[in-house]
Amino acid sequence: MAATSNFFSIVAGVGAGTGRSVALKFAKAYPVVLLARNPQNFESIVSEIKSSGGHAIGISTDVSSPQSVSSAFAEIQKEFKGKKLAAAVYNVGGKFIRKPFLETSLEEYEAGYEANGKGFYLFAQAVLPLLLDSVSTSLHPPSLIVTGATASLRGSATMSSFASGCFAKRATAQSLAREFGPKGVHVAHAIIDGVIDIPRTKDWPANGGVEDGKINSDAIADSYWYLHTQPRSHFTQELDVRPYVEKF
Amino acid sequence: MAATSNFFSIVAGVGAGTGRSVALKFAKAYPVVLLARNPQNFESIVSEIKSSGGHAIGISTDVSSPQSVSSAFAEIQKEFKGKKLAAAVYNVGGKFIRKPFLETSLEEYEAGYEANGKGFYLFAQAVLPLLLDSVSTSLHPPSLIVTGATASLRGSATMSSFASGCFAKRATAQSLAREFGPKGVHVAHAIIDGVIDIPRTKDWPANGGVEDGKINSDAIADSYWYLHTQPRSHFTQELDVRPYVEKF
Amino acid sequence: MAATSNFFSIVAGVGAGTGRSVALKFAKAYPVVLLARNPQNFESIVSEIKSSGGHAIGISTDVSSPQSVSSAFAEIQKEFKGKKLAAAVYNVGGKFIRKPFLETSLEEYEAGYEANGKGFYLFAQAVLPLLLDSVSTSLHPPSLIVTGATASLRGSATMSSFASGCFAKRATAQSLAREFGPKGVHVAHAIIDGVIDIPRTKDWPANGGVEDGKINSDAIADSYWYLHTQPRSHFTQELDVRPYVEKF
Amino acid sequence: MAATSNFFSIVAGVGAGTGRSVALKFAKAYPVVLLARNPQNFESIVSEIKSSGGHAIGISTDVSSPQSVSSAFAEIQKEFKGKKLAAAVYNVGGKFIRKPFLETSLEEYEAGYEANGKGFYLFAQAVLPLLLDSVSTSLHPPSLIVTGATASLRGSATMSSFASGCFAKRATAQSLAREFGPKGVHVAHAIIDGVIDIPRTKDWPANGGVEDGKINSDAIADSYWYLHTQPRSHFTQELDVRPYVEKF
Repeated sequence: MAATSNFFSIVAGVGAGTGRSVALKFAKAYPVVLLARNPQNFESIVSEIKSSGGHAIGISTDVSSPQSVSSAFAEIQKEFKGKKLAAAVYNVGGKFIRKPFLETSLEEYEAGYEANGKGFYLFAQAVLPLLLDSVSTSLHPPSLIVTGATASLRGSATMSSFASGCFAKRATAQSLAREFGPKGVHVAHAIIDGVIDIPRTKDWPANGGVEDGKINSDAIADSYWYLHTQPRSHFTQELDVRPYVEKF
Repeated sequence: MAATSNFFSIVAGVGAGTGRSVALKFAKAYPVVLLARNPQNFESIVSEIKSSGGHAIGISTDVSSPQSVSSAFAEIQKEFKGKKLAAAVYNVGGKFIRKPFLETSLEEYEAGYEANGKGFYLFAQAVLPLLLDSVSTSLHPPSLIVTGATASLRGSATMSSFASGCFAKRATAQSLAREFGPKGVHVAHAIIDGVIDIPRTKDWPANGGVEDGKINSDAIADSYWYLHTQPRSHFTQELDVRPYVEKF
Repeated sequence: MAATSNFFSIVAGVGAGTGRSVALKFAKAYPVVLLARNPQNFESIVSEIKSSGGHAIGISTDVSSPQSVSSAFAEIQKEFKGKKLAAAVYNVGGKFIRKPFLETSLEEYEAGYEANGKGFYLFAQAVLPLLLDSVSTSLHPPSLIVTGATASLRGSATMSSFASGCFAKRATAQSLAREFGPKGVHVAHAIIDGVIDIPRTKDWPANGGVEDGKINSDAIADSYWYLHTQPRSHFTQELDVRPYVEKF
Repeated sequence: MAATSNFFSIVAGVGAGTGRSVALKFAKAYPVVLLARNPQNFESIVSEIKSSGGHAIGISTDVSSPQSVSSAFAEIQKEFKGKKLAAAVYNVGGKFIRKPFLETSLEEYEAGYEANGKGFYLFAQAVLPLLLDSVSTSLHPPSLIVTGATASLRGSATMSSFASGCFAKRATAQSLAREFGPKGVHVAHAIIDGVIDIPRTKDWPANGGVEDGKINSDAIADSYWYLHTQPRSHFTQELDVRPYVEKF
């Protein structure tokens, strides 16, 4: 795809589900950088992309460490010297802790913010200057797409850690949409309301185990690609997704 | 498109903007029925679709009249005997009244509900049985897609008529999503937050007149098509759209 | 209470629960007009207020009939000639219909709007000029307080009638708050999320029948009085209430 | 007030506005503990309460330091040995930073979470066991009341730090309401949407400088007291407040 050949993309938070699907999808148009703490989470995806004729690299990164993020982006700059960033996806959810509040330690409570607040701040600080730099030349408005959850909209009992992190991430995404939208960067937030259909959730009894009762992560990837390709006269800031049988 | 050849679609509320773009978009896959009170609003679109090799008919319909809706659907059933309904779009906004409350007559106040409450009820009653009947055979989940507005989310001063209608429409769309989603019908609601770029709004000073400061209705059509093609494991119930420079 | 002696109040929608409690509460400060379609709904409350030394009249009124509302307010003007309106409470919920959508008739669907849309419009048209007229002299900012429900915030399956009406009422209340707040009239909306504890609900199994699992309507009356007495530097537009054990 | 004589209350975050007013209000019923980092912020309030015949102590506390909070509550336990906690108010807002995102340092970004996330966690961990212990004996349901802001509901451009903290605090308050409400503890969150009228904001041009265009903090205190005295059959989880002329 000639028009996109000088561009690349970044997906932070890859594993078996959404991150992998998004990386495979975006790899059809752009080289992709995969960020995950554990190389096992990106190695097979990098191979998968390469064997389909795409270009991908993985960088072991702890998104909530300034040093780690800084070193990852130094590597990215070296690897993609002269290329511009078309899209960045923040798909990090962090630790999911579900505990009675009075049994939740400070460390556990803060874990929700670690990835969703601090980590997202660090990622956004790194990618926004690159996205701004692509505004005048990219085919589609440069995009920062953020994965949210049911807990981005409501704080449930025993979920203060995850919900407070997800709320903080959504607040930041809204702030960035309002600040960077007028500059041509598309910041979008997706509420993923349901269980993702991945090997790890195979036996989870979501929606009584009915067919398609869990979210197909390839469909999420299609949504993210759709968000990325929206023209600047028509930016979606937020959408929700859930299986047809999900209660909401 | 073989897989869709036994299907058709309906767009209620066509004119120069969203309705026309949506009809042209869906006409690439399905024959389209266009509903508008005034034939002038659909005639040129029907011609446009036909001249591109598509199939379309227009039926003059007052969506807030039970008799008119009933007669329109009798005609549709005759015209598309043996075919099934794949998608129905409700793009009727009705009269937009902006007046101090104490100068708003009962008739003016009720005008907001006429199209968005009663009209949507009548349309939904007519299309839902047809959409349910398509669940097992359609390529994409049969869809009812509803156009909303900023006024679907907030009641502004001097806008009680339009806002109360839009709120009622959104409430009904949510109810239908929760009732018919589990049966396989996708009910989605789009918040259109901004001025649509059509001849009538050419001189409106939206967003200071900057380029792309009004919404391109073809992009809305892309969104509706994207919503229609989502698999049932991943239904979006609501998304917002606005120009990159729109304050929100 | 000398400061309030030239004022009166109106409560539309009285019966065994919220309306009665609100009337009794406001009657401690102001004469109260009770509006209900069926005189049986206000007669005993009028007696109750009178026997406590208060002043109250009941007027049989169909709030969704312009003629009926108009005639009620003519009677009110005659009865309270020279007095000013301090507070008006709209506590009409209308018919509550819970049915599969395709079994809901147009008449049933519109019933939700009849009381919550049209009825509230008529009531607001009648009381707002009177409330505006009280701004400079009343002890507390003149108030229009509106009863909402869970269905004001979400459209549940099989509840499109009630939810669309409640959404319309909330939209109108928001519009009025934004238009009349700056003129000194306090428009507030209360989300009543739970079953009210009245004789009719005695055997309803709300919250497993635990003690205080239903809402005490006297507490709602306290809330409305609290809303009414807020100074204009501190207006609450919306609050929710529910029993401590209610799921939300 | 005999019924409340075995109880005390705590207000975290006192200064010239809301905290002072809330402390004075609650001091009419309960001894009050005032927490603030800087003793200058509570000393005059403690004197004011004492000179009105109330009982108050101030403890210099950094609410985002586990050690500091722990030592403050040790002192509280000693001071109020045998007494029970009736109400705890978290009125800490933390640093308010308004800066373009790319000029916001990590430390500045995290400042929003420091007080509103971590600080609120530490306070809630300390007070909830005490509030639970009061459920069976207190006159009013033991209460944890939390001060929020406009930024609790929307992330504005250049306000990612404060908004992410306020969103996190609201998420946590919601989680706690859902977990501890059924146990009899009332957790409520107030959205303060406007400028508080205190010496520091005297010359702020809020709402064009009109009379009552800033929020009277004594009215906020009345709201908090009203929330505290709600019976358990009628808990308000969230309310908003703003001056009558505030745009929203």
